[in-house]
Amino acid sequence: MSGGSSDPRAGGGDGREPITAAAVAAQVGGVLVGDGATEVHGIAPLDRAGPHELSVFSNPRYLPWFTTSRAGVVLISPELADIDGASATRIVVAKPVDAMVTLLARFHRTEARDVGVHPSAIIGRDVQLGAGVTIDPLVVVGNGVVIGDGCWVGAHAVIGEGSVLGRDVRVHAAAVVYPFTELGDRVTLHAGARVGREGFGFVPQAGGVLRIPHAGRCILEHDVEVGANSCVDRGSVDDTIIGAGTKLDNLVHIAHNVRVGRGCFFAAQAAVAGSTRIGDGVQVGGQAGVGGHVTIGSRANLAGGAGVIGNVPAGETWSGYPARPHRDHLRAAAAIARLAKIVRPLEQLVHATGAPSAGPSEAGGSAS
Amino acid sequence: MSGGSSDPRAGGGDGREPITAAAVAAQVGGVLVGDGATEVHGIAPLDRAGPHELSVFSNPRYLPWFTTSRAGVVLISPELADIDGASATRIVVAKPVDAMVTLLARFHRTEARDVGVHPSAIIGRDVQLGAGVTIDPLVVVGNGVVIGDGCWVGAHAVIGEGSVLGRDVRVHAAAVVYPFTELGDRVTLHAGARVGREGFGFVPQAGGVLRIPHAGRCILEHDVEVGANSCVDRGSVDDTIIGAGTKLDNLVHIAHNVRVGRGCFFAAQAAVAGSTRIGDGVQVGGQAGVGGHVTIGSRANLAGGAGVIGNVPAGETWSGYPARPHRDHLRAAAAIARLAKIVRPLEQLVHATGAPSAGPSEAGGSAS
Amino acid sequence: MSGGSSDPRAGGGDGREPITAAAVAAQVGGVLVGDGATEVHGIAPLDRAGPHELSVFSNPRYLPWFTTSRAGVVLISPELADIDGASATRIVVAKPVDAMVTLLARFHRTEARDVGVHPSAIIGRDVQLGAGVTIDPLVVVGNGVVIGDGCWVGAHAVIGEGSVLGRDVRVHAAAVVYPFTELGDRVTLHAGARVGREGFGFVPQAGGVLRIPHAGRCILEHDVEVGANSCVDRGSVDDTIIGAGTKLDNLVHIAHNVRVGRGCFFAAQAAVAGSTRIGDGVQVGGQAGVGGHVTIGSRANLAGGAGVIGNVPAGETWSGYPARPHRDHLRAAAAIARLAKIVRPLEQLVHATGAPSAGPSEAGGSAS
Repeated sequence: MSGGSSDPRAGGGDGREPITAAAVAAQVGGVLVGDGATEVHGIAPLDRAGPHELSVFSNPRYLPWFTTSRAGVVLISPELADIDGASATRIVVAKPVDAMVTLLARFHRTEARDVGVHPSAIIGRDVQLGAGVTIDPLVVVGNGVVIGDGCWVGAHAVIGEGSVLGRDVRVHAAAVVYPFTELGDRVTLHAGARVGREGFGFVPQAGGVLRIPHAGRCILEHDVEVGANSCVDRGSVDDTIIGAGTKLDNLVHIAHNVRVGRGCFFAAQAAVAGSTRIGDGVQVGGQAGVGGHVTIGSRANLAGGAGVIGNVPAGETWSGYPARPHRDHLRAAAAIARLAKIVRPLEQLVHATGAPSAGPSEAGGSAS
Repeated sequence: MSGGSSDPRAGGGDGREPITAAAVAAQVGGVLVGDGATEVHGIAPLDRAGPHELSVFSNPRYLPWFTTSRAGVVLISPELADIDGASATRIVVAKPVDAMVTLLARFHRTEARDVGVHPSAIIGRDVQLGAGVTIDPLVVVGNGVVIGDGCWVGAHAVIGEGSVLGRDVRVHAAAVVYPFTELGDRVTLHAGARVGREGFGFVPQAGGVLRIPHAGRCILEHDVEVGANSCVDRGSVDDTIIGAGTKLDNLVHIAHNVRVGRGCFFAAQAAVAGSTRIGDGVQVGGQAGVGGHVTIGSRANLAGGAGVIGNVPAGETWSGYPARPHRDHLRAAAAIARLAKIVRPLEQLVHATGAPSAGPSEAGGSAS
Repeated sequence: MSGGSSDPRAGGGDGREPITAAAVAAQVGGVLVGDGATEVHGIAPLDRAGPHELSVFSNPRYLPWFTTSRAGVVLISPELADIDGASATRIVVAKPVDAMVTLLARFHRTEARDVGVHPSAIIGRDVQLGAGVTIDPLVVVGNGVVIGDGCWVGAHAVIGEGSVLGRDVRVHAAAVVYPFTELGDRVTLHAGARVGREGFGFVPQAGGVLRIPHAGRCILEHDVEVGANSCVDRGSVDDTIIGAGTKLDNLVHIAHNVRVGRGCFFAAQAAVAGSTRIGDGVQVGGQAGVGGHVTIGSRANLAGGAGVIGNVPAGETWSGYPARPHRDHLRAAAAIARLAKIVRPLEQLVHATGAPSAGPSEAGGSAS
């Protein structure tokens, strides 16, 4: 529990399946240099790996770590293969990081799955359950729900009335699917995801406000992933649609009537306000916010923390608040840095020429 | 599940209650132009509506969509009523959008409600349940809780010991009301809302920090709405109070001892730090943050993403970080854009006059 | 429920344990001035306290409130002790706020705890439960979980397979501990916290993307606190580690492979992207975001809303986006404010000298 490097358990990997260096070399198609019998049971970065762990050395800037690493086995690029360093067994391979990713699954200890409906789950009327479905303890499934083959619904999840889940959907613990939501095949909802809530829409009324009824649907197409505690609201007059293959990280918010294209990525805490349209392959950085009723072109890239209040053309990278092309942002920052060094002489120059200083309203005029 | 326009189910609306164009015209007080027998069973925007859906055309900028729309019926403004376009039956009405909102309720498929306490719910000692209360499956109600007439508590919600709910409160699935929280009438908590948590307060101690005990309450007045996964902490020395009619969107955070007035709106991911006071009718944009111990005047408007670290006068619109009046923000942005174009000549001018460039400390002096 | 000042229940405190002014004075080591028999049963700020509540007056700026306060007893600084004002009994004490904190615990009504496993909880195979453990209703504990002495797991919490909880861990309602997560002693998870989720990592593949398996662990060391609805992902190749004594407020996100040191504080909605390293004693303001693969030195201070995209040296205060030293940020803001007043004369000066205005590409050149 100490987490320090003296912890014998330090480093990634659950330690379930030891594998020899020779077997690793064979699996990744690499060249073994050293003792092929060395066994590893986990993966860790160079500075934290121990003698029973495998690490990667593919970037010269990590040379200091490589020199002192205690890793038992190191995947190493051909161009670095002859550097002096750790005494580890080396496996020379063209793309060490890709090779490591293929090994991760081996060291990944997966949760056990008991197919079937746990007796503590509460299943409504007229529910259709496909083949090979797992319903974990204390799940609540509303009336008329359809759950496709191979789905796995985690403990305490709630699937609201009339919702439809495709095949092989994975709903993690404590996620809530509001009534009448539609999930495609292989959709993943992480713990605490909330999909299909009535959106945040009100109209003024005598004596207060009226909540706008939400008649639109919430549709997550195939292979969509929704992170932990993220929220996707249903539409009011239009549907809310998340396109196939789009992935949302944790604590993301997608408002009503939004349409997100295919293959987009939203990093954690990103948010999109109502009725905005986002193309295909858009990348949205962490904590970026997109205002309502705007259009983001396909393959646009919104930097982390960007505050987007207008349309963004396809393929462009925008940043800052209000967001604008990233190049313009850098240019303005550079201009400010240079001008900040000569503020006083500039003021003196203006004073010396007798030109009247612009009042705030004058300079502001050009901004409106 | 494809979500494309070829999906016969594309467009909002659950399709439950078909209605004829003639009936729509009668309901909204509009003038029917075309076939009054045309039936619609849902609502959708012009570009996605099909022959059995109703749409709205009230803004000339959507003319291209109107021209090609397949909508069966269109609500249309008098000034646009004669434009050539879709072959749809038209209903001419002064305020098409308002008319549409009145129709939404008709197309809104609502969740079924079974009044009574589900046998799987766990109800503590000395709990008072009003008339017409619904307690869904697996709800946990702590000891001494009071639940008013007409309340509906969704599956897996937890109502902590000693909490008090007024009449007609709606607690959605998986929301948590911490012990000793007080909710007024008609309060709505969406899925995963957390209200009444002990706030984030610590004082230094020998060997670490001490958590400050939170003796203040968490009070949500009448008609407050808390979005999905939003959090409102209880007070430490003061109470945390959300004023009547205030609405919080998803993933909002309200810290301890904060007092929010009546009729405010907080868009998604907004946050307020401890002990801040917010007046009535304040609008807080998405991802805006308000620092601790400041005062926001009534009817102020904080732009999306604003970072507010000081007091904001009543009625003003502030934006940016650190937030300042929105007009000043625009003015500075315009000044930067203009100056960025003449940085080099300005530097040359200063150089030519022999004026010493200000070192960083000199220019910085005026900032402190 | 009105929350107005006319509410007889206004003010913090649950009113459980009345205490006399004389007893308060004795407990905090203060000097009693007035009626020692005055009883109080709660704590509230000067402007809201009633005759049975205790308040604090330690800052002259609150004099207007003090003058009209209805508080029954006021803790007051020596230098303010003789000011005319409220008719309250006064207790003169060197540090009134600290004195008040010591009193809060007295007025803090705590939730009742029933030690033992509630019969509705679902406990997996091979689970080890320590002495004095409380498992509340409908908790789900996976196979092979270890729960240390004195732990308290709240209603609807889920403890995933193979996870390990130290001693005196407090898991609040509806929190989810994903499988194979490790919590040290005295860790607190608030409602809806999600710890140990597989992080947000994908690699391109023919026909889409592949989710990177996460073989790293999620480790929360001793005395870590995770706020309501906050998320800490498990590592992919490295472990995610939150150091001892670090506290996260609500709606915080910590991505995969991040290592946070000891004694850090993360205010609400802060976020850290993958593989970043944060030292000890770092303070992260609300809504601040730290990019991936950067290093934040110990005792650094990141202002609220800061967008950090590079390394931050130990002990420095950074702010803004992109974050830089706070002093530089203030300096640039001051420069802009001064230059905005003389934009037009500067343009005229440049024009008069015949210097060519820099095109966008020229000024931009210096930014790259």
